[in-house]
Amino acid sequence: MHKGLSRYVPVLDWGQRYNREALSKDLVAAVIVTIMLVPQSVAYALLAGLPPEAGIYASIAPIVLYAMFGTSRALAVGPVAVVSLLTATIVGQVAQSGTAGYAVAALTLALLSGAFLMTLGFFRLGWLANFLSHPVIAGFITASGILIAASQLKHILGVQAHGHTLIDIVASLGRHFSHTNLATLVIGVAATAFLFWVRKGLKPLLLNAGVGPKLADVIAKAGPVAAVAVTTLIVAVLGLDGYGVKIVGDVPRGLPPLTLPSFSPDLISQLWLPAVLISIIGFVESISVAQTLAAKRRQHVEPDQELVGLGAANLGAAFTGGFPVTGGFSRSVVNFDAGAETPAAGAYTAIGLLFASLLLTPLIYFLPKATLAATIIVAVLSLVDFSILKKTWAYSRADFTAVAATILVTLSIGVEAGVASGVILSIALHVCKTSRPHVAVVGLVPGTQHFRNVNRHQVETVPHLLTLRVDESLYFVDARFLEDMIFERVTEDSPITDLVLMFSAVNEVDFSALETLEEINRRLRDMGVRLHLSEVKGPVMDRLKRTHFLGQLTGEVFLAQWDAWKALAETTQTTN
Amino acid sequence: MHKGLSRYVPVLDWGQRYNREALSKDLVAAVIVTIMLVPQSVAYALLAGLPPEAGIYASIAPIVLYAMFGTSRALAVGPVAVVSLLTATIVGQVAQSGTAGYAVAALTLALLSGAFLMTLGFFRLGWLANFLSHPVIAGFITASGILIAASQLKHILGVQAHGHTLIDIVASLGRHFSHTNLATLVIGVAATAFLFWVRKGLKPLLLNAGVGPKLADVIAKAGPVAAVAVTTLIVAVLGLDGYGVKIVGDVPRGLPPLTLPSFSPDLISQLWLPAVLISIIGFVESISVAQTLAAKRRQHVEPDQELVGLGAANLGAAFTGGFPVTGGFSRSVVNFDAGAETPAAGAYTAIGLLFASLLLTPLIYFLPKATLAATIIVAVLSLVDFSILKKTWAYSRADFTAVAATILVTLSIGVEAGVASGVILSIALHVCKTSRPHVAVVGLVPGTQHFRNVNRHQVETVPHLLTLRVDESLYFVDARFLEDMIFERVTEDSPITDLVLMFSAVNEVDFSALETLEEINRRLRDMGVRLHLSEVKGPVMDRLKRTHFLGQLTGEVFLAQWDAWKALAETTQTTN
Repeated sequence: MHKGLSRYVPVLDWGQRYNREALSKDLVAAVIVTIMLVPQSVAYALLAGLPPEAGIYASIAPIVLYAMFGTSRALAVGPVAVVSLLTATIVGQVAQSGTAGYAVAALTLALLSGAFLMTLGFFRLGWLANFLSHPVIAGFITASGILIAASQLKHILGVQAHGHTLIDIVASLGRHFSHTNLATLVIGVAATAFLFWVRKGLKPLLLNAGVGPKLADVIAKAGPVAAVAVTTLIVAVLGLDGYGVKIVGDVPRGLPPLTLPSFSPDLISQLWLPAVLISIIGFVESISVAQTLAAKRRQHVEPDQELVGLGAANLGAAFTGGFPVTGGFSRSVVNFDAGAETPAAGAYTAIGLLFASLLLTPLIYFLPKATLAATIIVAVLSLVDFSILKKTWAYSRADFTAVAATILVTLSIGVEAGVASGVILSIALHVCKTSRPHVAVVGLVPGTQHFRNVNRHQVETVPHLLTLRVDESLYFVDARFLEDMIFERVTEDSPITDLVLMFSAVNEVDFSALETLEEINRRLRDMGVRLHLSEVKGPVMDRLKRTHFLGQLTGEVFLAQWDAWKALAETTQTTN
Repeated sequence: MHKGLSRYVPVLDWGQRYNREALSKDLVAAVIVTIMLVPQSVAYALLAGLPPEAGIYASIAPIVLYAMFGTSRALAVGPVAVVSLLTATIVGQVAQSGTAGYAVAALTLALLSGAFLMTLGFFRLGWLANFLSHPVIAGFITASGILIAASQLKHILGVQAHGHTLIDIVASLGRHFSHTNLATLVIGVAATAFLFWVRKGLKPLLLNAGVGPKLADVIAKAGPVAAVAVTTLIVAVLGLDGYGVKIVGDVPRGLPPLTLPSFSPDLISQLWLPAVLISIIGFVESISVAQTLAAKRRQHVEPDQELVGLGAANLGAAFTGGFPVTGGFSRSVVNFDAGAETPAAGAYTAIGLLFASLLLTPLIYFLPKATLAATIIVAVLSLVDFSILKKTWAYSRADFTAVAATILVTLSIGVEAGVASGVILSIALHVCKTSRPHVAVVGLVPGTQHFRNVNRHQVETVPHLLTLRVDESLYFVDARFLEDMIFERVTEDSPITDLVLMFSAVNEVDFSALETLEEINRRLRDMGVRLHLSEVKGPVMDRLKRTHFLGQLTGEVFLAQWDAWKALAETTQTTN
């Protein structure tokens, strides 16, 4: 199916088989998605600290480029909440929001992110994203959702407030609280309450009223559009902008402009590391949405090709007045539920958005920012899910620690530090766990050729033969631990004459561990104890054969532990 | 043997059993070691950028404190080459050599290092030192030896030169080369040549001349003392100090002073991280010397207690005019060869050094610095050993990469960066290796109950049953790789109805991997393929039992792979 060029440009593949039925399904989906996307795109531009039109521009070229290079049938690419928050945080460190430098920095961030994603895809390095564990991602998304919701409260109150951490944001809101604009507050609270009700209460109500489930779904999803329409109308009719209600105002009409990111070495040196971060987070979010949707329809997503698709989308955003984008959950689900059949649906959405940016922007002149904030708050609070803390606590303290640290650091220090600490802590905890590996004394399960832990199973052992199953690869971190453990058990006065190290769980023996094994062999020899190995895996054996160790070994290497048992255990006795 | 208080203060243990024979052996060793230590201590003080007496002071209290708290019978604690170089590098970053601030910073470094070592020992965290792999240590010692030797060339030439990297040092020497002092050069080159000859050629000569091997050894080891005595005499008699030969000069006579390190938060914040580094390197060097010597006499060294001993020694150095110390190879070997029986030998050495610092310092007034530099050069060049590069290259590219990086970074950027990059690279390479684990398709070795890789062994398989042995713990880094691998093999059109994951090498399943396993189970179920597990280890099973996974599993969990085979393979056929 994926042959030659079409592997890298999937449009060549599905484009050939495109027919009228798929076309009509895609068109219907595109109309629905376009209507949804205008307010959403404007809202995320606001969250990223950019003018409203940037959100619409960032939804056009990226959607088309992803349709050409991506592999997901249903993924909708554009501005999303977490990536927009990251953009605001990162770009806010190098430029002042509202300046031309800020917009250029956002373009440059998209450029670097696009280039990085493309490079990863080209070298098939998608697996690097695996370093972000599921719990860390879940914790990060939850904490980001809280941060984003908090950052939008200023628009609901109609005050100025800044800050990239929860404490800063709350403190800043506290200082400006007395300046709350009442009209804004009423609109903001009403819109938020309405949107929460639409999300939770409307659909059951419609279903009870006999509306079909599919239509009920579409009506419920159109809630934000209704909120936008109604509040815009109210502000326009009552002239509330004269009473301090902040509105979107003039949005330039026209096609997305051709823009040039900055290639200043100074700016690039400041932005490349954040670009790596935003790319990986965007990729992980996008791929998990794509895989979830693909699984529902038994379709397949190629992670490495997804990198190319998202990279192309970000490069597109960089040159058409956008900012970093990725595949978003809410926009993709709308697309999916609306029945999008192929990536062409995305292209039609892009055409719809082109019309919107050419003709419809005057309609949102009076759109209050409080309404946009309300749509963001309701959307991101659905991402907040602390159940990951409970689940990981029950399963593994290490996973819990990584999640808890991610959440706390994200909220208290910032999004970049939050992700970094989650990744580093996950790896550190894993490595530390391997530093004191589980080592089991094993014996023969009676009537079988199978050997298990003497403490967990009824097994046979003999006093002069000690078999240790090492439950970890042997490498510099844990090799000395094994040495200490062996010589705690094998002492001068023990009856042991033969020690078998069962290597069934040893997946690697590095140079340090090799030296330690040589030392163990030497010390055991001095004590008159022979050292044997059993069940050494092929790759480990290949490596040991390159050394003098096997020649020095006082005992033998047995293919199976059963062979070692047959050769070494003359008399048997049963222990617990 | 190690009960109650004596576990923490070993002197209470061996002190009780101390007798006349041990006393006389210890006394003889102490006299020999004292004579050797005076020039060595002065030389390392010079290397650390401190006045000569600091080296002697740093050998007195630490030796006594180590004798009380340490566990090695033969380890001699004091200034050593690598730690002195590190001291010069670290303290040189916060103060100017020769100033009072420099000496205080060195005391503070010893204090922090002592406190850190004590803390590690108290919490029994000695295993943390395992993160420095053998190859990284070997590479670091080799690179440090080269740096130290290069840094001493200025004393041989009698010029000024600075720098903490090889390039800086060489460039600085080049600039000052024209100022070379001829008399200094002659002394320096002659002393170096003499010491090399003593090390390589003298002992065979003595043995050929019929001198007993023990005596030959002592005479050969006394080489530096002879070089010191002769060159001092020459300088004094010819008055070469008047011709520009730099000499040690006035060394204050007296007992080690009581000194106070600085507790300035500013200085501590600059020094704590370097103190951690110097502590770990010192500990690793010391413990490997101690273990080597202990192995020769079948004695035992407690790593965690060693931390306490070295910590106490450094605290002692901090309050008696010293600088960071550790157990040194050359001084310990002298001690050992001289027949030291108990740590009391160290205490007698300390008394000898007290006498020396009270009475003998005028004797080294005319000692040329070039001679001290020669003793350092000859000592450290014996540490330089590039064979580790060849050995690791043959065994494993990952180990080789870590060593090569450690050597290159140490020489080109500095000692701290060198060690850090070695450790980080070792861990990163290990983690990356686990990200794409070895997974073997296994079959039954005929006539046994043992299962091995179909590509390496003549085994039996059946078409509808696929058994994969996963050769790695399942965690966030590699879980998705396994998922991809499985669905590359199990496709809609494959004849497989049962997949067994043989967990004999899976030592951990973290939360991310659990979610991936659930996903694999779900996808296989949709394809009509049952998922089974076999040989799941106790600790992994305990954890899985806390989840719903085992309930959802479409297949079974088999104790042994043989049980899975018996239950699932009805018909058999032989493959390669």
